[in-house]
Amino acid sequence: MSTYIGAAQITSPANPRVRWLRSLRRRRVRDQEGLTVVEGHDELQLALDVGARPRLLVLAPELSGRVDVALADRAKDVGAEVITMSRSAFAKASYRESPDGWLAVVRDPARDLGALGEVVTSAVLAGTTPLVLVCEAVEKPGNLGAMLRTAEAAGVDVVVAASPVADWGNPNVVRASKGTVFAIPVAAAPAEQVIDWLRRHDLRVVVATPDTDRLVSDVDLSGPTAVVVGAEHDGVSDVWFDAAVVGENAVVAKLPMAGRVNSLNVATSAALVIYEAVRQRGG
Amino acid sequence: MSTYIGAAQITSPANPRVRWLRSLRRRRVRDQEGLTVVEGHDELQLALDVGARPRLLVLAPELSGRVDVALADRAKDVGAEVITMSRSAFAKASYRESPDGWLAVVRDPARDLGALGEVVTSAVLAGTTPLVLVCEAVEKPGNLGAMLRTAEAAGVDVVVAASPVADWGNPNVVRASKGTVFAIPVAAAPAEQVIDWLRRHDLRVVVATPDTDRLVSDVDLSGPTAVVVGAEHDGVSDVWFDAAVVGENAVVAKLPMAGRVNSLNVATSAALVIYEAVRQRGG
Repeated sequence: MSTYIGAAQITSPANPRVRWLRSLRRRRVRDQEGLTVVEGHDELQLALDVGARPRLLVLAPELSGRVDVALADRAKDVGAEVITMSRSAFAKASYRESPDGWLAVVRDPARDLGALGEVVTSAVLAGTTPLVLVCEAVEKPGNLGAMLRTAEAAGVDVVVAASPVADWGNPNVVRASKGTVFAIPVAAAPAEQVIDWLRRHDLRVVVATPDTDRLVSDVDLSGPTAVVVGAEHDGVSDVWFDAAVVGENAVVAKLPMAGRVNSLNVATSAALVIYEAVRQRGG
Repeated sequence: MSTYIGAAQITSPANPRVRWLRSLRRRRVRDQEGLTVVEGHDELQLALDVGARPRLLVLAPELSGRVDVALADRAKDVGAEVITMSRSAFAKASYRESPDGWLAVVRDPARDLGALGEVVTSAVLAGTTPLVLVCEAVEKPGNLGAMLRTAEAAGVDVVVAASPVADWGNPNVVRASKGTVFAIPVAAAPAEQVIDWLRRHDLRVVVATPDTDRLVSDVDLSGPTAVVVGAEHDGVSDVWFDAAVVGENAVVAKLPMAGRVNSLNVATSAALVIYEAVRQRGG
């Protein structure tokens, strides 16, 4: 059993690998390298549980206390290089205010739409009815993370970010998703491409918006369905209301609201529509 | 029509009123003064829409650009003193990274449990069936805010924080709630007091937890009901599982989950249970 303590150790905050880890904060760098960061012992455990394969694991025993060797070994077994850092070097590389001494570099979870199409096709071939979540221009990592957790729990097949603001590899999305961003196929593309993709896969588009009289519970969600939710402030963009673009089969629908303010958080709206689909499907 | 520009202006960041506004960041001060802060033009508008009555409105025309005089007049009409500040003084008083030049001081929205009991009793007397949301030890203001929005939209009568971590007057809760914290009666108390209160008002306690085989959809939520959700990491505390404490009529129930991670965000869970109650009540 290895202890990892005393392994090749980086002590200088100016070390090039520390600077490289810091550079992954920038979306442009994440996109170029196709990598992102999972920080935290528990977060790494969740990511490994659902099949993430870290390339690099950085440990700071001064911060973590006794190293969880079993977890480090799991990362090593799936191919991770394991290095250690001093407290000061790790603090520089870390994304958190109170780092716990665990940080891993993994492949960016986003795939391209083509790969997600294969997942949908496979679901159909396997005799299950696809359920897709599309979130357009959602800004807050916490909302994207909550939606991924809902999608994973509800058995949604794939999640697509249309015209994304926050990217799937954003470390705050990874964190808020509790590892589920690695458990469910995700992609991102401009809204027009997403709409083409939905039509090509014969998914019924159900757009959640308060700007309609039709209730979600009155819409048939039992067939192959894509649930679409929009940005925090502005909801879905106009294109989703255009039958000529989204198809005659697309439908807009709202959740019942009885209050004076009538505003639901976007992750809440997504969950209520998705679970209505689960209910209609006898789940 | 007043313009508010050139009104008594505070220019020094060291001004005592600036320091007093800053002190309201501290929960202890908020509790002592019974006040909190609503920052932002749109947030103030929402708060006024649902009946909040600011004591003080601070404007920074250098930050806001042309002042929305109609909104300032609305605050003044319900009793607010209106003052202006220079950019530097306002920036010191502000809670935000990018302040928009609007900040109001309002009464802390939290009431005591007794007052909330009257709301529940009134609902019964009015022939409606009470629906109560209890959130225990929820930490993140964003989650509390999302739950308030759900509660308001779904027609929940009152929301109670049991053994609270974040307080209702936390400016981030106020903000995340989109004004709904002023639209729906809220209170906070230790869990044991909340349980006493629930029993005294004959509310059926339905505790959301994954640690059961009973599905929420198999529980009768059509009578007077209190939905209980727990903290982000640990869920509800053990006391809610103790029939001797919460009463024989209390029940634990879960949401259907089909994934490998099986973790729903607490605000998502609350929304799904509350909307199941709405559905059972024919809403």
